[in-house]
Amino acid sequence: MIDFITLCDYTGTFAFAISGIRLASAKQFDWFGAYVVGLVTAVGGGTIRDILLNSTPFWMEHISYLVVSGLALLFVIIFRKYVIRITNTVFIFDAIGLGLFVVVGIAKTLDYGFPMWVAIVMGTITGSFGGMIRDILINEIPLLFRKDIYALACVLGGIVYIVCLHFSVSLPMTQFIAALSVFVTRVLAVRYHISVPVLKGEE
Amino acid sequence: MIDFITLCDYTGTFAFAISGIRLASAKQFDWFGAYVVGLVTAVGGGTIRDILLNSTPFWMEHISYLVVSGLALLFVIIFRKYVIRITNTVFIFDAIGLGLFVVVGIAKTLDYGFPMWVAIVMGTITGSFGGMIRDILINEIPLLFRKDIYALACVLGGIVYIVCLHFSVSLPMTQFIAALSVFVTRVLAVRYHISVPVLKGEE
Amino acid sequence: MIDFITLCDYTGTFAFAISGIRLASAKQFDWFGAYVVGLVTAVGGGTIRDILLNSTPFWMEHISYLVVSGLALLFVIIFRKYVIRITNTVFIFDAIGLGLFVVVGIAKTLDYGFPMWVAIVMGTITGSFGGMIRDILINEIPLLFRKDIYALACVLGGIVYIVCLHFSVSLPMTQFIAALSVFVTRVLAVRYHISVPVLKGEE
Repeated sequence: MIDFITLCDYTGTFAFAISGIRLASAKQFDWFGAYVVGLVTAVGGGTIRDILLNSTPFWMEHISYLVVSGLALLFVIIFRKYVIRITNTVFIFDAIGLGLFVVVGIAKTLDYGFPMWVAIVMGTITGSFGGMIRDILINEIPLLFRKDIYALACVLGGIVYIVCLHFSVSLPMTQFIAALSVFVTRVLAVRYHISVPVLKGEE
Repeated sequence: MIDFITLCDYTGTFAFAISGIRLASAKQFDWFGAYVVGLVTAVGGGTIRDILLNSTPFWMEHISYLVVSGLALLFVIIFRKYVIRITNTVFIFDAIGLGLFVVVGIAKTLDYGFPMWVAIVMGTITGSFGGMIRDILINEIPLLFRKDIYALACVLGGIVYIVCLHFSVSLPMTQFIAALSVFVTRVLAVRYHISVPVLKGEE
Repeated sequence: MIDFITLCDYTGTFAFAISGIRLASAKQFDWFGAYVVGLVTAVGGGTIRDILLNSTPFWMEHISYLVVSGLALLFVIIFRKYVIRITNTVFIFDAIGLGLFVVVGIAKTLDYGFPMWVAIVMGTITGSFGGMIRDILINEIPLLFRKDIYALACVLGGIVYIVCLHFSVSLPMTQFIAALSVFVTRVLAVRYHISVPVLKGEE
C-alpha cells in the first residue's frame, strides 16, 4: 500500500505543481517565482497540516517533492503549447492527487492520536489549502471558496473514511474507497457543474 | 472564572465567525467557503498564537469551535434580512469576544513562561490576526491596519493586564479589567470615530 | 563572529522594516498598521523558518526586533521627505540584511541536524518570505516572484555556503563569503537589471 501511495503522492504533487505554475505564468511570474508557486501549491496543504500536528513538514524529509515540482516546471516550459489540450489529463491527475492527499492527511492525523473529526479537518486542509495559498500568492480570491465541489469533496472523503473504519473495513480498502470517493465527487462535480449554493449577502 | 471565560469565548467565536461569513457572502462565496472563512476568522488568531507557542491549536481539542461557527452560518442564512439591523448587536458581541480573546492569549502565554511583552504581542495576535486572515482570504487589504482602533485596543488591554498584575490585583479581577478596557476602547473608538493617524507616504 | 552577526542582523531588520513601512504608507495604513507590516516584513521569514524547524521564533527571545522595527517607524515618520533620496542607502542596508538573514537561516537549520538542501531552502525562506508576507498584507502580487534576482540570490548564497563547507573553508569565512555572494548578486542584479526570464503563459 505504501508504494502505491507513494506513486499517487508524486502524481498528485506533479499535478498540483502544474496548476500553480500555470496560474503563475498567466500572471507573468518569472521561472523561479512560478517554481515557488508550484511547490507551495503542491506541499502547502500538507505543510499546514504538519505544523498543526506539530510534526516535521513531510517535504523536509525527502527532496523528492522539490524535484517533482522542478519536473513540473520543465514540463510546462517544454510542452507550453500543448498544456491547454491536455487540461483534461491534468485535471484527472489533480483529482487523483486530491484523493490521495486527503487519505494521507487523515491517516497521519489518526496516527498522532487525534479524534476522527480532527482527522477529517486535516484531510481537508491537506487537500485544499495548497490551492488556497496559491490563489493568495497570485492575488486572487481563493477558487475553492467559490467554484465546484473541492474542499467539500475532501470532507466527504473524510466521512467515507471514518464510516469504513467504523464498519471494520480493512485499512487499505478504507483508504482506497475514501480516495476513490474524493476522485469521483470531483469528476462528477466538474462534469455536471455541481456547486454548493452561493451564500447571498445582504448587500 | 473558567466557566465565565468559556461563555465569553463562545460568544466571541460566534461574533467573529459572523463577521467572516458576512464579508464572504458579500464576495459571492458558496456556503462551504463562507463557513471556512467564518471559522478561520474565529480561530485564526488563536491558532497562530498556539503555533508560535508550540502548543496544540486550541480548536483541535474541542469540536465546539467548529460547531459554533456552523451555528453562525445557520444564523446568517436564516436571519439574512435582519442581519444588517442587528449589526450593532453583533458589534457588541464582537467587542466582548475581542476582550476575551486578548485575555486568553495573554494568560496562555504567561502560563508557558514567556515574559510580559511576549504576552502582550500574543494577546494582540489572538485578538486581531483572525480578522487579518479573513481579509486576506477575501482579497482585501486588512481592515485592522486602516480603520478605528482595533489591534491597538488589544495592545492597550495587554498593558492594563500587566499593570494590574504588577500592582498585585487578583487574577480574575485583572482579567476582567483588561477585557473590559479592550471592550470600552473598541466601543469608544467606533462611537467617536477615533483612529490612529494615517502614515503619510512619500508618494 | 556572533557580535558581527548581531550588528548585521539589526541593520537588516531595520532595512526590512523600512521597506514594509514605506509600502504600507503608500497604501494609507495608519501608524500602528505600518508598524505591524514593518515588523512582519523584518521577522516574517525567520518566523516561518523557526516554525518549520519546530523552534521558538527568534523574536520571542529578545525584544530587540520589536524595538528596531519601532525605530524604523520613527525614522520614516521623521525623515519622510528625505526617505526617497536615501533609497539607495536603504537598498544597500537591505542587501546586507538579506545576505545575513540567509546565512543565519542556513546555520540554524544545519544546527538542527537537517541536510544541506533543507538548509538552502530555509536560508531562502528566511531571506525572502518576510517580503512575500508584506506584499500579501498590502494586497499586491509578491514582488519577489516577478522582479530582479531576489529569492534566487538567496539560493545562490546557500549553494556557495555548502560548497565552501565542502572544501573545508572555516565557518566564519564560509558565512562571510556566502553573505557577500548574496549581497553582490543583489547589487549586480539591480544595477544591471538582470532578471530571471518570465514564464510565458499559454493565455
